[in-house]
Amino acid sequence: MNDFLSDLSALLGAGGVLTGQASAGYLLDQRRRWQGVALAVARPRHTDEVAALVKLCAAHGVSIVPQGGNTSLCGGATPDASGRQLLVSFERMNRIVAVDAANDTITAEAGATIAQVQQAARAANRLFPAEWAASASSQVGGALATNAGGVNVLHYGNMRELTLGLEVVLADGRVWNGLRGLRKDNTGYDLKHLFIGAEGTLGLITQAVFRLYPQPAAHATALVNVAGPAAAVALLRGLQAAIGDRVTSFELISRRCWELLARYCPELPQPHATPPAWCVLVEISDAGADAALLERLAQALVDLGFEDALVAHSPGDAQAFWALRESIPEAQRRRGVSIKHDIAVPISAIPAFLEQAEQAVKSGFPGADIVAFGHVGDGNLHYNVFLDDQTNSVYCHEPAINRLVYGVVAQLEGTLSAEHGIGVLKRDELAHYRSPLELELMRLIKTALDPAGRLNPDKVIRLEPPAGGTAAPD
Amino acid sequence: MNDFLSDLSALLGAGGVLTGQASAGYLLDQRRRWQGVALAVARPRHTDEVAALVKLCAAHGVSIVPQGGNTSLCGGATPDASGRQLLVSFERMNRIVAVDAANDTITAEAGATIAQVQQAARAANRLFPAEWAASASSQVGGALATNAGGVNVLHYGNMRELTLGLEVVLADGRVWNGLRGLRKDNTGYDLKHLFIGAEGTLGLITQAVFRLYPQPAAHATALVNVAGPAAAVALLRGLQAAIGDRVTSFELISRRCWELLARYCPELPQPHATPPAWCVLVEISDAGADAALLERLAQALVDLGFEDALVAHSPGDAQAFWALRESIPEAQRRRGVSIKHDIAVPISAIPAFLEQAEQAVKSGFPGADIVAFGHVGDGNLHYNVFLDDQTNSVYCHEPAINRLVYGVVAQLEGTLSAEHGIGVLKRDELAHYRSPLELELMRLIKTALDPAGRLNPDKVIRLEPPAGGTAAPD
Repeated sequence: MNDFLSDLSALLGAGGVLTGQASAGYLLDQRRRWQGVALAVARPRHTDEVAALVKLCAAHGVSIVPQGGNTSLCGGATPDASGRQLLVSFERMNRIVAVDAANDTITAEAGATIAQVQQAARAANRLFPAEWAASASSQVGGALATNAGGVNVLHYGNMRELTLGLEVVLADGRVWNGLRGLRKDNTGYDLKHLFIGAEGTLGLITQAVFRLYPQPAAHATALVNVAGPAAAVALLRGLQAAIGDRVTSFELISRRCWELLARYCPELPQPHATPPAWCVLVEISDAGADAALLERLAQALVDLGFEDALVAHSPGDAQAFWALRESIPEAQRRRGVSIKHDIAVPISAIPAFLEQAEQAVKSGFPGADIVAFGHVGDGNLHYNVFLDDQTNSVYCHEPAINRLVYGVVAQLEGTLSAEHGIGVLKRDELAHYRSPLELELMRLIKTALDPAGRLNPDKVIRLEPPAGGTAAPD
Repeated sequence: MNDFLSDLSALLGAGGVLTGQASAGYLLDQRRRWQGVALAVARPRHTDEVAALVKLCAAHGVSIVPQGGNTSLCGGATPDASGRQLLVSFERMNRIVAVDAANDTITAEAGATIAQVQQAARAANRLFPAEWAASASSQVGGALATNAGGVNVLHYGNMRELTLGLEVVLADGRVWNGLRGLRKDNTGYDLKHLFIGAEGTLGLITQAVFRLYPQPAAHATALVNVAGPAAAVALLRGLQAAIGDRVTSFELISRRCWELLARYCPELPQPHATPPAWCVLVEISDAGADAALLERLAQALVDLGFEDALVAHSPGDAQAFWALRESIPEAQRRRGVSIKHDIAVPISAIPAFLEQAEQAVKSGFPGADIVAFGHVGDGNLHYNVFLDDQTNSVYCHEPAINRLVYGVVAQLEGTLSAEHGIGVLKRDELAHYRSPLELELMRLIKTALDPAGRLNPDKVIRLEPPAGGTAAPD
């Protein structure tokens, strides 16, 4: 291994390899749940360096854990405890490579943050619509590896739908150049879709070409109290019928969210005298002027019977609504450790999910405190369960609570990971809920592309039962 | 083989197996270019029957050629000349399985036509936006297998982007049920994207779940003369800046198209006294009323300096414009046999492509008659070359003309198949223009999923050099 590390240092130059204290921040995940140990942290500057280091790893039989902004919620970017894996950080590959406004595309390196891509698009009067709570620090590569979602998926799609081309370093260090900026390309199997969402287990994404969109000039935002989740779904369809498919965000917020915000984020002014049982944060966007769009939204809400909706009368109002929505994760973090779920069901099944999941959880854990919110326009809810224990030891109840929640999800033909991915957190759950055939197909693909199993081993799917020292961090 | 056929007949029942004259229509492609021979035509009624017949084929070592509406332009659905392949038609699996309006999804069997799906969506006040010249006869399975595009891709995407879930019968007859109707689902490798666009070489698609969209109440359509392709691209971006991303179609039409329409489709009234060198057919759609939208489009066109645009003042006007656009392929067919290309380049490179490709083709074939038109909003042009010879014998010049056209495409980082797929027509071109690594990855996947190579053999990609009797139809 000394040979390996000195070869690696020679390859990557000064600042290219971190060990000891300098590497500590990369080895603990952002939930502070998984603590890894690594041979070192490698920080390549170019695709060529990634290719060379992957070849070096292949020669020495070293496994690789790729890491972007280290914002995974599932332990997907943390090495195991063996100390034999190499963590590869893309933070020095953070260039915006090209903006082609006439083609409505942008090309960025894997280590560019989502916020950087948004900003470069905005400078060309275009929109890059990916946006979520961590998008200031999330990087392109990690966001693609987990097919991240966020608050604009309803109109613009997930990272997958925003992507036209990829460059990927394969397990043997060869570079696949699929950096095509084309809207239509039917030339055989679509390789990019294999790597997107594969969490670095099939190849290391080094660059991507994304679609851009017209920058909407006008936005209108409202907080709308609804009788319940079924009324929220009906409101979404009513708004779409009235004003077309320009509803860009449609977020459900439950009363517990307002209570947590009031207690743990008191610096944020509350919009309601009494928090409503259920409410929706709606945003629509369009060309034209804010005032005309706001009038259209307000009129549609009145026509649909929501006269008491709180409409944002200024960008400041809208920002205040969004600050509340985006602070729900932080308010939860301040409350303590919870059992988190990131589920999706058909949108039509959202009301059934909320009713049945609460019943199931309360039947097993009568004192459970359930915090539900999220992207109901995508059928995606964050469904978090607090118990009396507010520390990491609460995770001993995670399997039992998961069984209750995911049982309802499975019954409703939903998914146990909507936008956070699998990592190690949900790997065994995935193996439980997906069909043996589906798992077999995934293993076939993994084996075809990474026969030695050296790319982010034991994340997403295990090739064989765990066998001692190289087990994944959980 | 007699055993095989009698087992097959027993499995599929009366009308389930066609041979002799009854099978003739399935064995000639719609361009009348590829004539296949088959053991028989199998017409399963259910997924279970597909699974059983695939198992039967596996037991007898019989290869399978799946066929939808037989509208392939690339020979993708025609068996080879060996007489040893089984053609599987999905025409009896044509049910709309479910419409879930609150989830905005529709589930259909592989043999349902695109028009059937459109109609079922409309009945639920929703839009299924896939639409192209052959969509009345194109079937779901074939459209997915080729990731078909069409005239609404600019706003809604290709078949791939419209698809949420699939059911697929694998090479060994097992059934993968991936019929999930979810907008977000990040649970390991996204298997559906492997099968979409694979032209039946990795599995047989039997059912799909599609997204639906709000049915736009208002449409506005215009024919706009432009100075040239660069002005067309600028007009697209100008319209999007003025009225947002609700431009749903943006079709470029060259003068030769109008001349062919005048000569070969004289029943269609021509909108111009003198055909313009270049013009664009624009359609925008929205909620609200036609009149308001039309005014918005007309105002935007005036603001952008296109005062003389022909705006459709009634649905009849709009239909007449579209009838002309959709009849270009028919006018070409009546003119004779041409060398067809379905290319895409970055939208910003469309002007360079048209200039350089014409130069290249005319340098080798000074008398060439070039007909160019298509979905310029997607960077996708149909680029067809007529020579003096109007019969199938003109195809002897196809390799030389392809080399000229695809050379320009490759230089501009484009693709030789935008929306028609590869089939047999472009298989060897694909092998020429894609990198050896990309081809190797495709072969790895093919071998992993269809190790015996019995699913649509020699379409898209050849596993090994041709070896006599089982070669593909060309």
